[in-house]
Amino acid sequence: MRLATLRTPGGTTAARLDGDDYVLLDAADVTDLLTQPFWRDAAAADGRRAPVADAQIAQLVRPAKTVCVGLNYRSHIEEMGRPLPEHPTLFAKFAEVLTGAYDDIVVPEAVAGQLDWEAELGVVVGRAVRGASPDEAREAIAGYTVVNDVSARDLQWRTTQWFAGKHLEASTPVGPVLVTPDDLDDAADLAIRCEVDGTVMQDARTCDLLFRPADVVAYVSQFLTLLPGDLVATGTPGGVAAARDDKPFLRDGQVVTVTVEGIGSCRNVVRVGRS
Amino acid sequence: MRLATLRTPGGTTAARLDGDDYVLLDAADVTDLLTQPFWRDAAAADGRRAPVADAQIAQLVRPAKTVCVGLNYRSHIEEMGRPLPEHPTLFAKFAEVLTGAYDDIVVPEAVAGQLDWEAELGVVVGRAVRGASPDEAREAIAGYTVVNDVSARDLQWRTTQWFAGKHLEASTPVGPVLVTPDDLDDAADLAIRCEVDGTVMQDARTCDLLFRPADVVAYVSQFLTLLPGDLVATGTPGGVAAARDDKPFLRDGQVVTVTVEGIGSCRNVVRVGRS
Repeated sequence: MRLATLRTPGGTTAARLDGDDYVLLDAADVTDLLTQPFWRDAAAADGRRAPVADAQIAQLVRPAKTVCVGLNYRSHIEEMGRPLPEHPTLFAKFAEVLTGAYDDIVVPEAVAGQLDWEAELGVVVGRAVRGASPDEAREAIAGYTVVNDVSARDLQWRTTQWFAGKHLEASTPVGPVLVTPDDLDDAADLAIRCEVDGTVMQDARTCDLLFRPADVVAYVSQFLTLLPGDLVATGTPGGVAAARDDKPFLRDGQVVTVTVEGIGSCRNVVRVGRS
Repeated sequence: MRLATLRTPGGTTAARLDGDDYVLLDAADVTDLLTQPFWRDAAAADGRRAPVADAQIAQLVRPAKTVCVGLNYRSHIEEMGRPLPEHPTLFAKFAEVLTGAYDDIVVPEAVAGQLDWEAELGVVVGRAVRGASPDEAREAIAGYTVVNDVSARDLQWRTTQWFAGKHLEASTPVGPVLVTPDDLDDAADLAIRCEVDGTVMQDARTCDLLFRPADVVAYVSQFLTLLPGDLVATGTPGGVAAARDDKPFLRDGQVVTVTVEGIGSCRNVVRVGRS
């Protein structure tokens, strides 16, 4: 099942892809859908149809909690010469940092000096999870999506904690759709890629993740309840601008595209200093 | 003006202290009050009265965003032999981590090995703030409160990012009241203290803060909009358990009390392994 949030004349609606149509669901967006007690039934319901060709994708989810993983691709950790960590490196994103899969990323000039991409597999939680085993955590995953964890490296590394560089308002694209685990073999081995103006910058596979989605959900749930609609961004592979010799940070007008196989792409234009 | 959130038979209500009474306000809690467009008028309104002696304090605020400052007391930074930082060290807390000023702090045994206190001045935002100067930021502060940023040091220091150790569910007391800036001289020079079972562990003054409340609000607003009800925890002075020779981490049954002069105290019993 593939779910999206679509723009409507009056706001947004959750929708399910069915052939060449979206079936409009009784929920304002996919977060609203997932917080319904029997969301799988609600997501499978009949409804008014809209052709995919006419649909406008809105921001997929508005999670109360987005938990992100730092270093998590094995090959990238090894190429950096670091030992494999025992525990996931986690950080938070507040809801206002997310944006739509095709929205412009608008960043004030003062904080746009070292804008970087981070292609990531996103994991959306479908039921409350506390103290879960990895198997229980896997059952709690509603589906997978695409995240570009756009980071302002200068702000990120001003202090030991990454908060500022990870909290530029409306700078983290998510979407365009959520795909349920049964349609993706639990996202165990998907190609993940980032392109900037058509040049491939990151190219990896999710089978290289050190902490798999269910591991991360289970770990967080040892101290904090994850709730329906919460998002986990599972970390990025090698190839970010900051790790390249020429430091090709994102500039005004560039197009950054993050693709996860079987899900789709976030494709966003960077706009510096305009709102 | 002193505002609280009180328990009622059906839930909670915001209230204003008036002599020996609380005046009950038309809002479910202080967060709900602050998100009203003219909250100062709503807070000053007449209403049903309840004697303070009968009132039961509930969790003061349920902020969508809690932004915390790391190293921020000058004397503590200097005693650690570190240079004074140019920028505040920031990290996030999600809403589920907060708890009431007098609630038990209940922590699963597996993550309770190195529980530590952190007495902090809390700053509650009263209007949307984006791209603010420190003067504009000062105008946006609704009031001040008390925070105990209880931290699980072992989890905090497993990786470079502090998320896990700062996200034990319902472990960060906030309250008991919010005091408006006019009643506190902008919280510029207040005594702040932490006691464990009556022994003073931290004892400092807010005039020693390197980044003052308005500085922190202004800094965050350069990249992220702060909204009414959001909370800033301004950092803790020296004297935490982890920095003491005998590492007296909190144990089951201990009472931890954090007091800020002119506001009040959070007083919480630590409970390990029970729910």
